This record gives sequence, structure tokens and C-alpha cells, in this order.
Amino acid sequence: MPPPAAAPIVPLILAGGSGTRLWPLSRQSYPKQFAPLHGGESLFAAAARRFAAPGWAPPVVVTGTDFRFIAADQLAAAGIAPGALIIEPSARNTAPAILAGTLAVARERPEALVLAAPADHLIADAAGLRAAVARAAGAARAGRIVAFGIRPTRAETGYGWIEPAAAARADGPPVPLRRFVEKPAAAAAAAMFAAGRHLWNAGLFLYTPRRLIDAFRAQAPGILAAVETAVARAAPDLGFLRLDPAAWAAVEAISFDHAIMEHDAGLSVQRYDGAWSDLGDWQAVWRAGGPDTDGNVLQGAATAIGCRGSLLRAEGAGLALVGIGLEDMLAVAMPDAVLVAPRARAQEVRAAVAALTARGAAQATTFPRDHRPWGWFDRLAAGDRFQVKRIVVHPGAALSLQSHEHRAEHWIVVAGTARVTLDGTARTVGPNESVYIPQGARHRLENPGPGEMVLIEVQTGSYLGEDDITRYEDRYARGPDGSG
Amino acid sequence: MPPPAAAPIVPLILAGGSGTRLWPLSRQSYPKQFAPLHGGESLFAAAARRFAAPGWAPPVVVTGTDFRFIAADQLAAAGIAPGALIIEPSARNTAPAILAGTLAVARERPEALVLAAPADHLIADAAGLRAAVARAAGAARAGRIVAFGIRPTRAETGYGWIEPAAAARADGPPVPLRRFVEKPAAAAAAAMFAAGRHLWNAGLFLYTPRRLIDAFRAQAPGILAAVETAVARAAPDLGFLRLDPAAWAAVEAISFDHAIMEHDAGLSVQRYDGAWSDLGDWQAVWRAGGPDTDGNVLQGAATAIGCRGSLLRAEGAGLALVGIGLEDMLAVAMPDAVLVAPRARAQEVRAAVAALTARGAAQATTFPRDHRPWGWFDRLAAGDRFQVKRIVVHPGAALSLQSHEHRAEHWIVVAGTARVTLDGTARTVGPNESVYIPQGARHRLENPGPGEMVLIEVQTGSYLGEDDITRYEDRYARGPDGSG
Repeated sequence: MPPPAAAPIVPLILAGGSGTRLWPLSRQSYPKQFAPLHGGESLFAAAARRFAAPGWAPPVVVTGTDFRFIAADQLAAAGIAPGALIIEPSARNTAPAILAGTLAVARERPEALVLAAPADHLIADAAGLRAAVARAAGAARAGRIVAFGIRPTRAETGYGWIEPAAAARADGPPVPLRRFVEKPAAAAAAAMFAAGRHLWNAGLFLYTPRRLIDAFRAQAPGILAAVETAVARAAPDLGFLRLDPAAWAAVEAISFDHAIMEHDAGLSVQRYDGAWSDLGDWQAVWRAGGPDTDGNVLQGAATAIGCRGSLLRAEGAGLALVGIGLEDMLAVAMPDAVLVAPRARAQEVRAAVAALTARGAAQATTFPRDHRPWGWFDRLAAGDRFQVKRIVVHPGAALSLQSHEHRAEHWIVVAGTARVTLDGTARTVGPNESVYIPQGARHRLENPGPGEMVLIEVQTGSYLGEDDITRYEDRYARGPDGSG
Repeated sequence: MPPPAAAPIVPLILAGGSGTRLWPLSRQSYPKQFAPLHGGESLFAAAARRFAAPGWAPPVVVTGTDFRFIAADQLAAAGIAPGALIIEPSARNTAPAILAGTLAVARERPEALVLAAPADHLIADAAGLRAAVARAAGAARAGRIVAFGIRPTRAETGYGWIEPAAAARADGPPVPLRRFVEKPAAAAAAAMFAAGRHLWNAGLFLYTPRRLIDAFRAQAPGILAAVETAVARAAPDLGFLRLDPAAWAAVEAISFDHAIMEHDAGLSVQRYDGAWSDLGDWQAVWRAGGPDTDGNVLQGAATAIGCRGSLLRAEGAGLALVGIGLEDMLAVAMPDAVLVAPRARAQEVRAAVAALTARGAAQATTFPRDHRPWGWFDRLAAGDRFQVKRIVVHPGAALSLQSHEHRAEHWIVVAGTARVTLDGTARTVGPNESVYIPQGARHRLENPGPGEMVLIEVQTGSYLGEDDITRYEDRYARGPDGSG
């Protein structure tokens, strides 16, 4: 039952996280919400698609500055035009992100309902979730902040729990919320699970902008003032709304639960009984993967011989993973990084990232693929005096006009058409043709065509760092040097 | 104490194995003896270098047809000129290989001693081993076949054991050999280990050619006749001696132990107390790697967090392996294949190879690097309508004059100088320069320079298989089609 067209629900998708517990798949440069962690689509794209339905407004997305092009690319690929793409200049946890997104909604659609939703959770039944939101809409319009509570399936100590004030029904309206129990001890979790009244906090919240702003005014007036300034001074930037960095830097970093929900007296909870996972660590991915009769989950080109209770995941074409005799283990293999651990120690993956960071390994934080405003590139290979990249340029996009002091570049077009400007002269280069960019030459690469343009770039020279670039002109307003 | 110069010892290096128990490092296309399994040098190169000393003749090498260029390359890189490189047209186990090599030695140096030695064992103390051989030389010259016995360090059931007829001393001459005990049961191994008189069979044998031929005449006359024919009809081939394929196909495949040693009455054993490993499986690699105080062996860019008793090995630049909380596990990671198993199940790696073979995975048998008579190439990347290779051409070497029906090639020279012949016209291409080979064009690539020539090849086209090649001329006498 969609709400009236006059008051659409705005999905406010929180996509600023940079979790490391799913390393090596999730890395600082490309966190889990943008990875195809479960199925072929990213969690972020799936979250946006979940609310692309009648009665729902286009999504408002809040994400980090490093992820803005990834988010825009993935929405475009999913055919979803966002209502706004809001850039956090730095990570400030969920309370400021929810407030900033809500203030942006309030300017355009003060009458709307807002559903704040994490970008990195798994909810298979989109229609069922939308129906649950519809059941909660009346209470939200009446001035409640409505949390969504998942029916627990185990005595999980890693989640926040919700205690309803009355028996919550999935097929009824929300009930008042008595209290939050954040990451309970094992005994407390077991007791709650046994009693069967408590729910898991799904991190989804439904409210009117006015109600949320009032809650911040009451519970966190300092945050409200700083975020209002950051939104008021936000600068439009290539289709993004960039929050004012100075004002944003002054905002307290705090979760929405701690800042508001644990203190607000007008909360309700809507029970939702559909399948849900926060995919918070590899243990959760194993669980959500649907273990087979041996308890194994195999993803990608993985082979299990005499294994039980294990997650074997191979990422990337041309990579084979074989496990023999594994018991309750997880093995995640990517072409540049491999993780092996007992499933029960999935939480310690952070330690792995810390150890790799300490030894200066790029894999700790960075993927072989780099996303840029014009598209992306993969580092395919590097060796003494050469580097090979695959470069994909979006239709209509262009790299900056640039030159390199230390390297020459050879471009071989594989698909689409490139327009190459070289020392002032432009020409068109088609599939199977190549162009040579000598050291020092001013050059620009554009894709004038209707589809993606793919080329192989072979760099040769004594120094091949990304910082060997001088920019003369850039439609994405990037500086004269730095990576390109 | 080297033997008299008149009777040098000829190392006969058996390099035809294709073991799969060290997958993914050892594969059918590049078995373990050619891999840098322990340290930077391959086991084969180390085996050849072990006997490059005064009083020793150049090595005679027996290897498979697929490995001949690898063996030749590695000897050249080690600065060792072989006495002969004998090619087995097919694998026939050790008895025929030892006999073929010995017959070849007998033609040139009938007075020599021959030391048959596996190419894939680890023996750190080369001088110590040569001294042990010198101690055994008198007995061998007097007509004994001398086996070498390693002092056992555990009740190993995977090895063959030797029972000396008298107490064997490492610092004395050989003693008569009473019997072989092939892969004993656990109780028998424990009893032998406790008694302390038995030794492990190292697979090293010292003898005169005449004595060995007589032994085959007595114990395996059919093998002798067939192998004599295969050697008599062997064809010189680009510096190799290729055994006659038809005669060789008729030779019984059987181990030297089974064919000769278990039946011969004139055997001795020389005890050798130095460190030795057959590196027969990952368990053996872990043991030989020298476990640290936690029992871990870390090789390559491997990180262990809270691990015990585990082998973590990362092969290849740009690949990081992290183990968390592993107990007695092995994890071997390569860019295209990863193996994870309990150390105690190292023997089951064969099953992994079989499983991968069954699912048609190239990684079961093939490496990303291909060795050819002119050098080698790596497949760096492949995608829709393109493939990128790094090609390394040895000084003075040349690829065949060839053409491709379905693909064009772009060559970018990274190091050295290429001589490129394109539709009859030759030109020289230096570092940073490129050449375009259109579809259908007759072309040849040569390295006229004194060092390795390295180029990046980008293939584009609708079909990029190795079999899209027509050869017009080939100095390595390969056929007009097939991979090149």
C-alpha cells in the first residue's frame, strides 16, 4: 500500500562506510557497499534499487569524497537517477550523515517521509520491506521516529537489540520502543533470544524531516548547528552536493543510535520478519551465502574437497581456489590478496589489515582498480620500466589535458572510439588502432561515442608513478598535478 | 678427495618428473624441479650446480620433451654447459631414464663413474655430498652399485628405507646393503627408527656404466634391449639428444628400485648425514623451510597472525597472503591459484589437481608463463577482444616467420632491441618504440642484441587462441601450425 503521491518516501542511503572486516574484498579505496558481495550487483546498487518503486522518491545518497564517482557510476548503471548525491568531506559516523541528508530533503520536500537506510545490508525481499515501511508510515507521519526490528535467529552478541514496549507484529503497525541494548553480553543475548520479544536493530529509520530536526535540537544541538552550516554552505560540484569542509570538520562524529535513539522518548519499532543480514564480516557472508549440506559456501571458482562449514570465495577471472579438509574455515582469494582464517575469528580481519598497513602493503587499503570521474582503470601488470593498464572511459567523458615528464604512453583501442588530442591536433582512433604519446607531449583522451571506450595503455619509462602528471585543463576541476 | 682426473664422475640428473603434489607451484607444464621452491634458484639448477666441481664431468640431463627448453635455459643461467641433454619422448619412470643416460655416458666415457641423482631434492651441503660420493667411489669402481642412505630423523612412512648389512658410518666407506623396505607401515617405520640402523633411500646411485648395463642385462633384459635401440636411434635436435620415440614407447615404465635395486646382489650403501629432503609435498617444504618458534614457515609476502605450525607461502610480486589463527595448516597462494589445507593432508593435493582437471580449469596443469625455444612469455591479462603478453626473447633468438588470421598485434619494446620483419621489410625497434602487425601480415621477431629483449604485446581481435598461427619458416623446426 503506497503512501499518497503527495507525500512520497525519500530513501536516504548511507554509503559513507569504509569497513575493513571484509578485507580483502572491502578496502578503504572501495568499501564493501560498492562491491558485488552477494550476487552480481553491489550492495549499494541493490539498496538503491530496493526503493525504486511507486510512491518512493529518487534516493538521496550520502557518501565519502573518495567514493562519489563509484556511487554515481553504479546508480547510472542501475538506471537510477538520484535525488541528490551528498559528499561528506570526511567520515563523521551516521548521526551527522543522516541529519545532513535529512536537511537536504527538508529543503526540497519538507512534507516527505525519510527512510534512512544503510547501503551495505542484505535484504532480499524488497517488496516485503517496502510493505513494512508502508505499515509504519502512519506512525512516522504522526511524529514517531520508527526503527525497524528484525526477528532474531540466534543469540547474536555483535548486533544492537531493541526491546519493544508491547508485542511487535510483522503484519501490524509499529509499537512503542522501550529501549536499545547495544551489543549485549552472551548471557543477555541468550536470555533475549529465549524470551522471544526482542528484535535486532536493522539501522533503518522512518521519520519526517521536521521530527528528526527537532530530535537533534533536543538531544544534540551542537551537531544540528554545525550540520546546518555545512549544508547551507554546501557547494554544487559536478552533480554532487559537497558539504562545507570547514563546517563539517567541526561536527562531532557519533552514531545515530548514540546521539538520538538512545535518548528520544517518541520512538516506535516496526517488526520485519524477512531475511536480513548486515554482512558485517565473513562469518555473516558465509551465513547469508546459504551453506550447502556440508555447511560450505563456495563463491567463484572455488573447489572444496572434504571440507565442512567453510566459506571458499575466489574473486576475479582466472583465479582458482582449492580447499582440502577445511573445517569451519574461511578462505577468500583475490588476485592480489588472500585471507585464510577460522570462521570464528572473522572479527580479527581488522588485525590483518592493520598488519598489512604496518608493512606498507598497498593491498591493505587499495584495489588494483581506480575509479575516476571519467571512468576507471585497472593496473594489469607492472615490471621493470613498464606498466600496463586497461582504461575504460565513459561515453562523453574526457581525461584532462596533460603531459608526463618521465614516461611515454602507447594506447591501443580495444572497443569504442577514442578522440585523441596530441600537441594540439585531434584525431579519431578506432578499435585495433594505436597512438603513441611521447614523453612530454600534451595529450587528451576523450570518448565521443555512445558506449564505453576501452583501451590498453602501455607505459614505458624510468619512472611510472601516478604523480608524474601536469594538468593543463580538466573538466572535473582537479588540480594541475596529482593522480589523474 | 676428488677421484683421479682419468675417471671423472658424471652427474646424471633425472629431471623428467611431473609431480603434482606441490600444486599450485608444481604443474604439469612446469614441474617442481624447475621452480624456485627453496631459495631463489630452481631445484634443478641447484642439483646441477652441486656437482660443478673439480673431478666431476659436465652433467648429463634426462628430461621430458616439454621441459627441454626450461632445462637448457636454467643451465645456461647457472653458467653450466651440460655434457648432454637427453629428451625422453614420454615419461617411463626412473629405470629407463637412468639406463638411457648411462648408455649415453658409456659411449663417451666408458671409464667414468656415474652418479644418478634426482633433480628435485634438497641437499644443502654440496661439498659434504661430494665427499660422501668420493668415499663411495672405490666400491663403485670395484663393481658395486652404491646407494646413498640418509640418517632418518623421524619414523617416516612415505619414504623407502634401506637396511645395511653392517653398521654404516658416514665417515667411512660404503657397507653391503641387505634389503630395501619400500614405504613401510607405521609400526615398521617406528621400529626401524627406534633401532637406529636403517637409513632413508635418497635415490642417489653411484656405479660404472658397465656394472649398470650388466645389472639390466641380468634383471631387465627387455628394458635393456629397448633402451639400447632408443639410444642408438636417438636424433640430435637443436643441441638435445632425442631418444627414438618408437623404441622408447615400447620401454616398460618402472622405477629403478623395482627393476634393479630390489633384485641385485651386489649393492652397497654409503651413509650420508647431511640435511636432505625430497620436498615431496608441502609438508616436506614446511619442514625444510625451518619453522620459526611458533612452528610457522612464511615464504614471500605472507603474514601470520596468531598462527602455529603453518606454512604460508605467497608466490609472485603484488600478492599478499594473510593467515589468522591457523593451526598446522598450509596455504599456498599464486596469482592464478590458491591451495588451503591442513598440513597433515598435504598428500591429498593430487586430488585437488584431479578435481580442477575434471572441471576443465587450466590451472590444474598450466602456468601463466610459457617457455619456448626462443625464450618465454607471460599472459599478463586477457579480456574481451584483447590479450596482453610480456614476451622475452633470448639474445640471438628468433620467433618463427608467421601470420595470424584473426588477430592484430601491437608490440612495444621495453628493453633491448628488436629486429622486426614485416611483409618482407626488416627494421630495428628500440626501447619505447612500437610496431603494429596487422591481421594476416607475415612477420618475424628477432633479438639481434647481446641481452634479453623484452616487449609488451597487445593482441586485439575476435579470436586470440595460440592456434591461430601459420608458420612459414622456423629455426626450431616446429610445424606450420600450432602454438608458437
